[in-house]
Amino acid sequence: MILAEVIGTVVAPVHHPSYADQKLLLLRPLRPDGAPRGRALVAIDRAQAGVGDRVLAVDEGSSVRDLLGEANAPVKTAVVGVVDFVEVDRRIVYDATAR
Amino acid sequence: MILAEVIGTVVAPVHHPSYADQKLLLLRPLRPDGAPRGRALVAIDRAQAGVGDRVLAVDEGSSVRDLLGEANAPVKTAVVGVVDFVEVDRRIVYDATAR
Amino acid sequence: MILAEVIGTVVAPVHHPSYADQKLLLLRPLRPDGAPRGRALVAIDRAQAGVGDRVLAVDEGSSVRDLLGEANAPVKTAVVGVVDFVEVDRRIVYDATAR
Amino acid sequence: MILAEVIGTVVAPVHHPSYADQKLLLLRPLRPDGAPRGRALVAIDRAQAGVGDRVLAVDEGSSVRDLLGEANAPVKTAVVGVVDFVEVDRRIVYDATAR
Amino acid sequence: MILAEVIGTVVAPVHHPSYADQKLLLLRPLRPDGAPRGRALVAIDRAQAGVGDRVLAVDEGSSVRDLLGEANAPVKTAVVGVVDFVEVDRRIVYDATAR
Repeated sequence: MILAEVIGTVVAPVHHPSYADQKLLLLRPLRPDGAPRGRALVAIDRAQAGVGDRVLAVDEGSSVRDLLGEANAPVKTAVVGVVDFVEVDRRIVYDATAR
Repeated sequence: MILAEVIGTVVAPVHHPSYADQKLLLLRPLRPDGAPRGRALVAIDRAQAGVGDRVLAVDEGSSVRDLLGEANAPVKTAVVGVVDFVEVDRRIVYDATAR
Repeated sequence: MILAEVIGTVVAPVHHPSYADQKLLLLRPLRPDGAPRGRALVAIDRAQAGVGDRVLAVDEGSSVRDLLGEANAPVKTAVVGVVDFVEVDRRIVYDATAR
Repeated sequence: MILAEVIGTVVAPVHHPSYADQKLLLLRPLRPDGAPRGRALVAIDRAQAGVGDRVLAVDEGSSVRDLLGEANAPVKTAVVGVVDFVEVDRRIVYDATAR
Repeated sequence: MILAEVIGTVVAPVHHPSYADQKLLLLRPLRPDGAPRGRALVAIDRAQAGVGDRVLAVDEGSSVRDLLGEANAPVKTAVVGVVDFVEVDRRIVYDATAR
């Protein structure tokens, strides 16, 4: 799984039922030190995430389909949890309640 | 899923029925800030995309096969939607109607 | 499989039984020379790993599900072993007992 | 799928029938602008490609197995087509007949 | 498949039968020009490879399981062949017998 920040949303109609009424989140993957890293990901939202949230995402279709409980869905990336805390070396480096 | 820009087309005959009559799009993956990132992708088109379009692409065979409704197809990458808008921090940073 | 360092923990509720009571470890992937490399990974722990440990991780859902013995689980990344030694060119370059 | 250049061949015996009599091609993946990018790939050849050819490659086992028509084969990467033309912004940027 | 150099070994107990009595090799993936590239991989050895060997590796669980002939094994990466020669532009750039 990866750590990412939700930085916005993408509007792009996809003609498949599994995308119906899905908000598409624009994710910025993060390095361990919190800096941005690499190309953007676009994810469906399974965790009521919002812009500015730091999130846990899964970027693999078979894993996402297990989460959706659907055997067939052309969805590779999903936000599966909103991060409350990140602790590094016994120090809180990210605290969602302090944003 | 990833965010990419369609920058051109590739002509390369592939001897498999799933490639018959398929236009192959050349994609430039994007970072969250819209800058190019990493190696090129070549995708089949499931969204009537054209050169210059910003698109949503899936880069995983099992996801693409779910989209095609085919259990077997040697296709890993597909454009699944043309992006209308990208919004970052409540600001429209990409608007297809303004191109 | 990849070599990584456990640098902390992530608290992020995921609504799926396979995440119940799972500690989520924050991993820093390593280059062959031990330097950090690329984006962070978040993993479930199958090896009683702790912060500061160098670990062996698997970043693929089908492999992780084989490890868990579950056919369905939206889990892509797991720590599968704690590293005792790394030897490069007949020289010990990492020794867990010497930390 | 990815765009790559065949830069050579690799001789490495693999003890599995799916590798018997297979030439292994050394590929240099390309960025959208044609510059090299990232680590080398080694591929089996399904398109009679030669050194110097620009090719379309698939880097995923399930896709390659669909191409081979074999349910089981420890082959992840295959060249599936030789590129005739690449067109970017209505301009031919690569033409195999002009090499 | 990828081209890599075996630079050492990793000792890390994994509690799963498919890892029993397996030596774990530390791999340095290579760019097409032979320079190191990216994060380290740890692989099981299916080719009697040793430190200093240039090898062909597969980094995908389904491919590796086909190689092992096991339907279930939490193993993503395997060395499948030891490289004898690499030829680039009709010139031998790597020759195992000359090491």
